[in-house]
Parts: sequence; C-alpha cells; structure tokens
Amino acid sequence: MRATMIYGPRDIRVEDADEPTLALPTDAVVRVVAACVCGSDLWPYRGVQPTPAPHPIGHEFVGLVEAVGEEVGTVKVGDFVIAPFAISDGTCPHCRNGITTSCTELRWWGSQDSAGLVTQGGQGDMVRVPLADGTLVALPGQPAADLVPSLLTLSDVMCTGHHAASSARVGPGSTVAVVGDGAVGLCAVLAARRLGAERVVAMSRHQARQDLALEFGATDIVTERGEAGAARVRQIFGGVGADAVLECVGTKESMQQSLDCTRPGGFVGYVGVPAGGPELPIGQMFSNNLNVAGGVAPARAYIPELLGDVLERRIAPGRVFDLELPLEEAPEAYAAMDARRAIKVLLRP
Amino acid sequence: MRATMIYGPRDIRVEDADEPTLALPTDAVVRVVAACVCGSDLWPYRGVQPTPAPHPIGHEFVGLVEAVGEEVGTVKVGDFVIAPFAISDGTCPHCRNGITTSCTELRWWGSQDSAGLVTQGGQGDMVRVPLADGTLVALPGQPAADLVPSLLTLSDVMCTGHHAASSARVGPGSTVAVVGDGAVGLCAVLAARRLGAERVVAMSRHQARQDLALEFGATDIVTERGEAGAARVRQIFGGVGADAVLECVGTKESMQQSLDCTRPGGFVGYVGVPAGGPELPIGQMFSNNLNVAGGVAPARAYIPELLGDVLERRIAPGRVFDLELPLEEAPEAYAAMDARRAIKVLLRP
Repeated sequence: MRATMIYGPRDIRVEDADEPTLALPTDAVVRVVAACVCGSDLWPYRGVQPTPAPHPIGHEFVGLVEAVGEEVGTVKVGDFVIAPFAISDGTCPHCRNGITTSCTELRWWGSQDSAGLVTQGGQGDMVRVPLADGTLVALPGQPAADLVPSLLTLSDVMCTGHHAASSARVGPGSTVAVVGDGAVGLCAVLAARRLGAERVVAMSRHQARQDLALEFGATDIVTERGEAGAARVRQIFGGVGADAVLECVGTKESMQQSLDCTRPGGFVGYVGVPAGGPELPIGQMFSNNLNVAGGVAPARAYIPELLGDVLERRIAPGRVFDLELPLEEAPEAYAAMDARRAIKVLLRP
Repeated sequence: MRATMIYGPRDIRVEDADEPTLALPTDAVVRVVAACVCGSDLWPYRGVQPTPAPHPIGHEFVGLVEAVGEEVGTVKVGDFVIAPFAISDGTCPHCRNGITTSCTELRWWGSQDSAGLVTQGGQGDMVRVPLADGTLVALPGQPAADLVPSLLTLSDVMCTGHHAASSARVGPGSTVAVVGDGAVGLCAVLAARRLGAERVVAMSRHQARQDLALEFGATDIVTERGEAGAARVRQIFGGVGADAVLECVGTKESMQQSLDCTRPGGFVGYVGVPAGGPELPIGQMFSNNLNVAGGVAPARAYIPELLGDVLERRIAPGRVFDLELPLEEAPEAYAAMDARRAIKVLLRP
C-alpha cells in the first residue's frame, strides 16, 4: 500500500508501506476512502515542531472496514466509518465523562498504540485501528459520495469548531466572535449558528475565507486584528463585547484578542493548539469575569451528535475543502496549505 | 459619628467623622447595624497593598435606611438593607447581564462615587449609598437578631463562595474540592452543598476551620497542600480528580493546586483575588480540557437568590464569624484576623 511520510521540514513523501493486519482482538483494519491535511500537520512541515525520525502522518480519515478482531462489537466488515483524530477506548472514566481526548489509553495515529504496536497515519491506503469500538463511529449505511467531505470533517475540524462553541456555552440568541479563519474557525462559525447564535462575527482578511464564513452563517466580517479588531467587535456588540469568543488559532496574540472581544461574564472557547504556551492574564480575567473553556476537542464524543445533521444535509462543513488531490500528490497538498493557496486539502487514495 | 480609617500597615484607627447626608436624588443614607473585616482588608493592613493616604475602610455592612433621595424607588426609610461590596446601578448592560461588578458606574466603598462625591467605608456608624436602587437589597421586614450575621455574609463572602461554585457549574451529584479555608472557602463549601454537590473535599490544616467546613457539609478533609494535596484529592475522586474545584485564595500556588485537582473537562471556579498575577498555564489547561471561570463576584446579583435560604434558615453562613467586637475595637479585629486567631470578625457600631 501507499502511505504519506514526513521526513522533516518541507519533506513529505508518499511511499510503499506494509499493509496493516489485525494485531489485537480489539482492532479493526480500515481502507481509507478520504483523508486530509490538518493545520497542525503544518507545524512539523514548517519545522516549528521537530521531526526526529521519519514517520507516517495524517490523523483525519474516513473509510470502509476490511476486517475486525473478535472482540469488536460496534463496527463490522463493510461499514463506512469515521475515525476521530485520537484513539480512545470509550470505557475509561474520562471517556465516560465525554473527554475522550483524556482517555487513559489515548494514542495518536502514526505512532504506537497503548500495546506498543505501530499504527499507520491517516494519509495512506489502509490503517489498523486499535480499540475500534471506542475509536470508530460507523454510519447506519453507505453515504452518498458527495457527503464524504462533510463526513471527513467530523474526524477533526467540525468537531473542534463545535467544541469551541459548546465550551463557550453558545446557545439560542448568543452573540459570538470567531478568531481564526482556518478550517476550524470556519467550522466554529457553522457550529455557533447551528447552536442558535443570533449574530456571529468572523474575523478574517481573506476574501475566500470571508465568503465561506458568510455561507456558514456569519453575520459580520471584521478585518482588523489585535486591539483594533477587538474594539470593532465590542462596538458591534453594543460596546460590551460578545457573549462567546471562539479562539481557533492558539497564539498569545489571538488569545489576547479573544479575551479583549469578550463581554464581562462571557466565555472564550479555545481550541487553538497553544503555540509557544501563551499564559493567560488572570488579572484581566478576574476583573472582568472572563471565563476560559475548551482544549483538545473530544471529537469522538461529538460525532454522534453532529453526524445526523451531516447525513440530513442540515450542515455542510465539507465546504472547507477547496482543493482535492490524489494521495500521491500529498506533498503538493502540504505546499498549498502552507502557502494559504488552499483552506484545507482532501486526499483520495 | 465614628468611622474606621486605615493610615498604613497595621495602623487602623476609629475616629470621629462627619455624618453623611443625601447628596444626590439616587442616594440613600444607611445606619450600620453590623459590619465586618474582609480578608482583602488585610492586604493594605499587612502593607502588601500601599495606603498612599489615610482613608475610610470596610466594604461589608447591613443596616437600616435613615433617608432616601427622591428618585429612590426600591428602598424606603426604616428598611433593613444588605449592601454588597460594590456600588452598581442595576441598569447598565453589564448589570443586566448579571455582572454587577462590571457596572459602568462601578465604585467602591470608602472612595468616590461616579459623581466624584466621597463615600464612607462600611466599618462605621453611617454610610451614604449612591445608586441606592441598584446597590441595596431591602428585606421584606425586620430580621430576627440572630440572623444578622448570616445576612451580613451576603454582602460578600457567601455570595463570593456561591460565585465560585456557580461558575464551576456545581450541581446535583458534583464532586468538589475547595482550596482555601478562609471565610470565602468555607462559604464555598456551603454553597457547593446547597447546589447539590455529592461530595465536597475541604483542604485545610486548621482544626477550627476543618470543624466549620464539616458543619457546612464538607464530606472529606485534606490537610496536604500543593501536589501532595492534589494527589490526595485525585485519589479520593477515583484517580481522575474533582468535577469542580473552588479556588478561594488567589496565589499562583493555590491556582496550580486547583488545576491539579480538577478532572479533565472539569472547572476551576476562581474567586481568590489574584495576588501577584499568577498567569494560567494554558498548555496544561489545553491538554486536559481544564476550564477556568469566575472573577470578582457579582454579589448584588446573587443576594436575592441566597436571601430566602438565609431567612428560612436553610443555610447559616454567619457561622464564619467566630469573633464579635464593638466598632471601637476595629484595630483588634484586624489584629485577630491577621494572626488567624479569628476566621472573620463582626463589628457592631
């Protein structure tokens, strides 16, 4: 089979690899139907994160089950499945609390499972899925082909945008601002509207992303950043700020901008992976009753809730894919996202 | 009249002062029935906060209305009133959002009101109350004398403890840990149980405070601090930590202890005034979905909800007062709290 590997900064290769087989009775083997490149994949691509040794890459995929171990009960051969970006057992206390990304057996694609066995990355032909019952979500039947991109977003970005909105308690009538116009930020706009937000400000200075934000239900676009952007958001919301600000970037500047947009008593829902560890200014938070909630999205826990809306075409988060390439062109997929020529790239094995 | 003044570190004096009169049509004048010393009053007392010039002190009092301005509609002469620790108008967007401590007219006792006029401190015979409709809460009648201490806690510490519990989403069945065994921490224990918490760990190494925590409904006492204390709390809660941790101290160490006690997906409800600005470790928060909510308690907004439980004797937060002194002995009240000889001291003019 073919698999995407990262060797180091700007060195992505698609190579031959061994086909996975069942190794444990709780495994499934999945043939990938579609995968994609994540904004966080760009970190090692750009050299911001080191790549000490070449390894398989990719953590978002959907596919068809080819084999299941004898202890697997919730997915069967032939099922179309969504794989969230993390492996979890579904039974530990954290999974039962809905925080599947704190699972005691938590592991990542392209690394090792909790038994110490190799797992494949998502950007390849096939993947061995450890703890298949806890990790995978099977569809009730085979999806229409045009739904595949939206189903694929449930592996990460749509669930992550939803986590931002849900953590920030977005509900009917909420006023919202979204910081970040990547795929997660755009999905956060969609998620906020889905939860009933009345007004959603998308902060973006890129025409294509502004257009998609508006299509996803944004009511206002703010192009300014930093304090100027925050001042504009506060002005839009009667001088007091937004009930909920969805932080989908992860830098110190974006977190500060988010706090500055939030009304006293409001929430920052944050899902941007903290880059360089921006510490939070508790003095400002305390004085203004600014609340901060979020973290690594427990995508697995959200898929069942969001899946119905995708299958019934009430939401189409797959619109974030503005480029589709064959798996063999994975290097170009990375280059396009790195140069912001594409919002998010879908790969077909 | 007599009023308590702070001149500098460990220099508290009770002095003659002018009696206040109505200055604005939105004013009331209140004769103080009971006041008290706050943990935060100890900051200037200890010299941690500077006292550039002598000024009246005290921000917690209950009393009887002696006069009202012609625009005051919700309190009348003779009413028994509770004054929260901050002045607010009750009509601005922040007050309508329930965050009265972000009121656009927010001012503090013993300083100046938003019209630039002097206000008295709470530790004195009489106080002019600006924005009386927004600030004061009148009781339906005259309270029994033994209820006065509990009513007095509604000016600050009981509402602040409730804010910690409410911000941390404590509800029926919650598991809770409380960091801090001062009056606020003890009230947080009471507030958590009032909201339905199933198990509440009080972290304290002082016998009298442990006893009161147990009386307020704590189910467990942990005497260890720091990582050892957090490890003990996690052990008590099945190795995963508490749903809600109520941070009632405000130091970097106490916030870290609180985060370390919290289960993934749980909340730190924080009301400890940040001392020295402990920044929050967003990397730890992100990885574990630790949420942080709270701030300066909007006491005014909570008084109506809590008042009924005090009047109907379902809660007795006044038990935090373990020393009662005449107003003239205010210096001894400060000394007793500073030396931790008393949890909280009630002053009677």
